[in-house]
Amino acid sequence: MELPHDLDDAQRALAEVQALLRKQKVIESVVHNQQTTVNPERQSLVEELVHRQHLTELGNKLYLLHPADVAYVLESLPQEERMLVWGLVRSDRDGDILLELSDAVRESLIKSMDSEELFAATESLDADEIAELAPDLPRDVVEKLASSLSLEEREQLRAAMSYPEDTVGARMDFDMVTIRDDVTLEVVLRYLRRFDELPDQTDQVFVVDRVDHFKGSLPLDRLLVNEPETLVSEVMSREVLMLSALDDAYEAAQAFERYDLVSAPVLDPSGKLIGRLTVNEVVDVIREESEADLLSSAGLREEEDLFASVWESAKNRWLWLGLNLCTAFFASRVIDTFEGTIAKVVALATLMPIVAGIAGNSGNQTMTLMIRSLALGQVTAANFKLLLKKELAIAGLNGLVWGSVAGLAAWGLYFGSPNAVMLGLLMTLAVMLNLLVGSLIGVIVPLGLEKMGRDPAMGSSVLLTFTTDSMGFFIFLGLASLFF
Amino acid sequence: MELPHDLDDAQRALAEVQALLRKQKVIESVVHNQQTTVNPERQSLVEELVHRQHLTELGNKLYLLHPADVAYVLESLPQEERMLVWGLVRSDRDGDILLELSDAVRESLIKSMDSEELFAATESLDADEIAELAPDLPRDVVEKLASSLSLEEREQLRAAMSYPEDTVGARMDFDMVTIRDDVTLEVVLRYLRRFDELPDQTDQVFVVDRVDHFKGSLPLDRLLVNEPETLVSEVMSREVLMLSALDDAYEAAQAFERYDLVSAPVLDPSGKLIGRLTVNEVVDVIREESEADLLSSAGLREEEDLFASVWESAKNRWLWLGLNLCTAFFASRVIDTFEGTIAKVVALATLMPIVAGIAGNSGNQTMTLMIRSLALGQVTAANFKLLLKKELAIAGLNGLVWGSVAGLAAWGLYFGSPNAVMLGLLMTLAVMLNLLVGSLIGVIVPLGLEKMGRDPAMGSSVLLTFTTDSMGFFIFLGLASLFF
Repeated sequence: MELPHDLDDAQRALAEVQALLRKQKVIESVVHNQQTTVNPERQSLVEELVHRQHLTELGNKLYLLHPADVAYVLESLPQEERMLVWGLVRSDRDGDILLELSDAVRESLIKSMDSEELFAATESLDADEIAELAPDLPRDVVEKLASSLSLEEREQLRAAMSYPEDTVGARMDFDMVTIRDDVTLEVVLRYLRRFDELPDQTDQVFVVDRVDHFKGSLPLDRLLVNEPETLVSEVMSREVLMLSALDDAYEAAQAFERYDLVSAPVLDPSGKLIGRLTVNEVVDVIREESEADLLSSAGLREEEDLFASVWESAKNRWLWLGLNLCTAFFASRVIDTFEGTIAKVVALATLMPIVAGIAGNSGNQTMTLMIRSLALGQVTAANFKLLLKKELAIAGLNGLVWGSVAGLAAWGLYFGSPNAVMLGLLMTLAVMLNLLVGSLIGVIVPLGLEKMGRDPAMGSSVLLTFTTDSMGFFIFLGLASLFF
Repeated sequence: MELPHDLDDAQRALAEVQALLRKQKVIESVVHNQQTTVNPERQSLVEELVHRQHLTELGNKLYLLHPADVAYVLESLPQEERMLVWGLVRSDRDGDILLELSDAVRESLIKSMDSEELFAATESLDADEIAELAPDLPRDVVEKLASSLSLEEREQLRAAMSYPEDTVGARMDFDMVTIRDDVTLEVVLRYLRRFDELPDQTDQVFVVDRVDHFKGSLPLDRLLVNEPETLVSEVMSREVLMLSALDDAYEAAQAFERYDLVSAPVLDPSGKLIGRLTVNEVVDVIREESEADLLSSAGLREEEDLFASVWESAKNRWLWLGLNLCTAFFASRVIDTFEGTIAKVVALATLMPIVAGIAGNSGNQTMTLMIRSLALGQVTAANFKLLLKKELAIAGLNGLVWGSVAGLAAWGLYFGSPNAVMLGLLMTLAVMLNLLVGSLIGVIVPLGLEKMGRDPAMGSSVLLTFTTDSMGFFIFLGLASLFF
């Protein structure tokens, strides 16, 4: 009932919801028109019934959707319609849907609910799920939830909430099956039959001792292919990737990717098993990381709700625009210094943005590759110099090629003018030098930010544009002031 | 032996390999120096032995690493050292390592091997793995491989190679366990015990009829928690996400992400089970897609080997730089039209890059959000107009705010000059208008490219810069020619 059968189901559902909402809108406006014009009471009653029928149909439609698909529908609807649809979702599914929503949309929906509704929506969630929602929930709801948990779960909730957002601890869950190593597989099989279902993404059960110290894992695969009389200790795997709760979640995700894992145990420093990380969380981590890179490289502070208010969205973009305006004014001061030269040869004003632009683009290419290699751990002290040399060589080669092209083009454009040859030479030289500047910045800045413990994607690009613009103008106009 | 125990193992291994390579280099240069200066034969023999010992140590070290970690080490080493290390890898592991390498590095290593070596490296691979490597292998090797396969596998290879790169068919594997629905779980358990191991990432076995038509799936979970006497048909799941070989791989990946899947069956149009897609492939698809976005938005044609030759790397960047140079020259022609105005008020040349720059940045923010929403399927005909209105409203608000700031700044900078007030007003107006242009392009271009079936990330940014630059100069200088 919940899982769709093919890939287009979710989009089809969205289209259906939108169609139902549209029908309803038409009726509303008809009702409204009639009320203000002729106001026939009986007619409007009929419309009212049709209206309600549409809402029921919508509610049924939503009930058949997977929580992730309801989340997708909600994210794709404008505020007003989103609230209407959210109101139609059965309250026992609210919690699961909230977990699937992006932060921005989740916040706005939580704001629309009172404490009682929030408690009802979240009380059936697991400790790790409550921990995920907790930062957005009102304090009294979290407290009420905590006191409704068992002692063990409350301890799990406390633990999960104590780890920083980007660690394995904040991403792990506590749904594990544990066994001892001195029993036979037959016993394990019988033990598993006592469960109603196994936790999602269980590809292995963990082997622990009396005090929950991790000893190894029994992949379900081995449980199934070996004879029932075999002892767990004979077939369990001791080569397991063990995570610590404070490990970086993204690094753990890279390990999952590298070794094709489905789950991995999380241990505390004493070696006690405290949770597990599963591949579905890993997929989310990878997705979020790549989105964060994309957004921050475009200068957006955070992911935006597609239908956030204009005011909210504008604020999300201000820091970056402000910063860029400052650096642009600085670069413009560089130009100002050479006003006299420009006044002499106005063509300089025409050509100077080209010098700045091409170096910005080339530096951005270098920087993108550098940031990627840093993320993959490929840049080390041993090969850094080599990389820098290589990028400078590429910039040199590109400078020769594109500098010549640009120089020839400039010469051609001003052919006949007494300055044509000079402009061409100047262009070639300035492009070459500024490409070198761009690639130097492209290599050094991400590495420097990484060394300082900062995110290399974040500030790199503003610094790059700043440098290639200012230096581009400085080199071009500076050389020009010598030439002319 | 192969799976590392913690997250830093791979980086540690790289550092060790680099250290061993460094030692070896020192010895080589010592040997070389001695040979050219005093040339004591016995001494150099000792060095030779030490040298060989280091290589053996290196070989042993590599043998202990997971293929994915060897791939990581290879990618992080410069050409010469990479070849040395590659030569030390045991040939029976070559195939698995090639599968883990990025395309660029894989190609360079394959080029270094002759047909015999390649055949030896790949003959133990599965049909889907051979299909993955096939485009890079010489034709004679592929033919030899094909003829060494069983009839069934040869058919699988043919099928896998026939699907386009970005489809589910090109990503699926053929390692499936299938059962009938009229047997008991006991029978299934006994059947599974006859395997040496189950295929990786097996979280369900597929239920098929006599002619391999897909009927449902039996999650291992249900196999384990239900009583052995139960019939498969009683507990099998019929709500399964079924993929077709021609489905888009990225859309399938989004479905895995949404519904937390580990594997999914792939059916042909008649409903016959032909393969399965697993989450490890999905993780790769997500990673590759986000990398491709990042690279193409920076104007890189493809992923680059960190240590490719300068020439190779430069070529990878040319298309973009050339394109940008063209558009920059076009924008410079716009400036040229207003040379007369600039000659009158040189300050215009100083301020004009600011107008172009801020709109480029703001448009890039809009565009990035738009591309992301398109990828998530959130932009529909029903909400497109609303989105456009919203982005224009944000641009208007930002124009008011940053236009005023820029105007005041310009006024302040030229305070005392008779043109100060005019320059300030001009700046405000031009920034406002150009921000509107930027956001219009930011919304419309990605959508247009998507409608045309193109990748919205690819050409968007060059078109954006082109427009915000040209229009920025045109608006600013055009207005100026009216003002002054």
